[in-house]
Amino acid sequence: MLKLYHAEPVANSLKALISFKEKALPFESVYVDLHKFEQHDPAFVAINPEGQVPVLIHDGAVITHTSVIAEYLEDAFPDATSLRPSDALGKARMRYWTKFCDEHVMSYVSMHGWHRMITVLARSIDGGEFEKLMERIPLHEQREKWRTARSGFSPADLANATRKIEVAVDKAEKQLAETPWLAGNQYTLADINFFAIGGMSLERLFPEMNVAKRAPRLTEWVARVSARPGVQAAFAMPNRTNPALRTFTGEAR
Amino acid sequence: MLKLYHAEPVANSLKALISFKEKALPFESVYVDLHKFEQHDPAFVAINPEGQVPVLIHDGAVITHTSVIAEYLEDAFPDATSLRPSDALGKARMRYWTKFCDEHVMSYVSMHGWHRMITVLARSIDGGEFEKLMERIPLHEQREKWRTARSGFSPADLANATRKIEVAVDKAEKQLAETPWLAGNQYTLADINFFAIGGMSLERLFPEMNVAKRAPRLTEWVARVSARPGVQAAFAMPNRTNPALRTFTGEAR
Repeated sequence: MLKLYHAEPVANSLKALISFKEKALPFESVYVDLHKFEQHDPAFVAINPEGQVPVLIHDGAVITHTSVIAEYLEDAFPDATSLRPSDALGKARMRYWTKFCDEHVMSYVSMHGWHRMITVLARSIDGGEFEKLMERIPLHEQREKWRTARSGFSPADLANATRKIEVAVDKAEKQLAETPWLAGNQYTLADINFFAIGGMSLERLFPEMNVAKRAPRLTEWVARVSARPGVQAAFAMPNRTNPALRTFTGEAR
Repeated sequence: MLKLYHAEPVANSLKALISFKEKALPFESVYVDLHKFEQHDPAFVAINPEGQVPVLIHDGAVITHTSVIAEYLEDAFPDATSLRPSDALGKARMRYWTKFCDEHVMSYVSMHGWHRMITVLARSIDGGEFEKLMERIPLHEQREKWRTARSGFSPADLANATRKIEVAVDKAEKQLAETPWLAGNQYTLADINFFAIGGMSLERLFPEMNVAKRAPRLTEWVARVSARPGVQAAFAMPNRTNPALRTFTGEAR
């Protein structure tokens, strides 16, 4: 009934997996091997024309983009554990944060992850082979990201990304001084979003940011989210990443 | 009970106003004069620290960002005319499109609008006065946008924005070949979003795109959305823009 195409329990795939585990929804897991560029295979692009994971299939309907998938699970399974406030204002607070994460955090943490991991990977591929791989990528923005990763992200862009992440860290810290969770008194999709797309690995990805000192409440929040059984269950999903390339989760830098 | 701070019925302010008019929700209208930079006044920034319109106040709670405001009105007034599908899959289809508009259309149409309007305006302000105005803008991104508008958007950035808009036009056209509205069989927040942030003025802003020929279904859809009494009521809200500067709505280029 529910089928999820996903990669390692990291970033957007982790974000989707946490929702499933927190809600205790059974699903068929289909691993998409990003190391083999399976997300650009014609068979996969036939399912998601954007060539990106994760993808949810429910009773034949295809749903993409993790923030959309997450709200879909809330709407489609109202009897499962709720990760969304029941009141209108709580929902608005949650959506303010999920939108902030989607638009002002995700791609900036991702740039640093790619800078450390994908640049190495992209440069290890022979030029002709690399161009063939690029031709298979449906989204213009993803092709550009790969090419930039190969040539190298500019210091100015990396510095701007760091600045964006610092703004997000300070914003979350300020919010957590007022409420126990990002959207208020309840653990919601906002927490899952911020955690999965970078909040969980700030210390390891950006030691120079000194997050423990700069944002003690956020650091405590990371521990609180990490300890949740649903989050642990998501982390326990298979991770086939070459350990030497695990920069995003922080094992390598 | 409901108070909306907004500017002219254009772009994001229009997007919020259409929801109110379609849902026939009475509200107190508070006009924020962008020509006088009232959105950066300390009194306004005390309400919305981001210094941007529109802002909704409902029973004392402050709600910002039009896509969040729009869903809030759906949640808070379930008995008013619905602009959101009632089923989970319909909601997901709607949110796929609202997210696409927010992330891949809005700022690109906006860049062309600013290129034609704000560059003229920003250059008419004396350098010292301009820097004083910049100091009042809370969001880094908005300050950068103003500075770039003054120095001039680069041809490469403008060309990329045009490309993004062409992708959006073709994507909407393809969708409208399958369903009468962007998210399916019902007029939703997705239609309002795409219409308000640029769909309505494609012909006038980008005549070289030849939208009528390139996207006949989208052109018919623009006429259909425009003709709605709720949309007409939103357009009838006061518009104090200097007619010579009405590039975004297309009166001037």
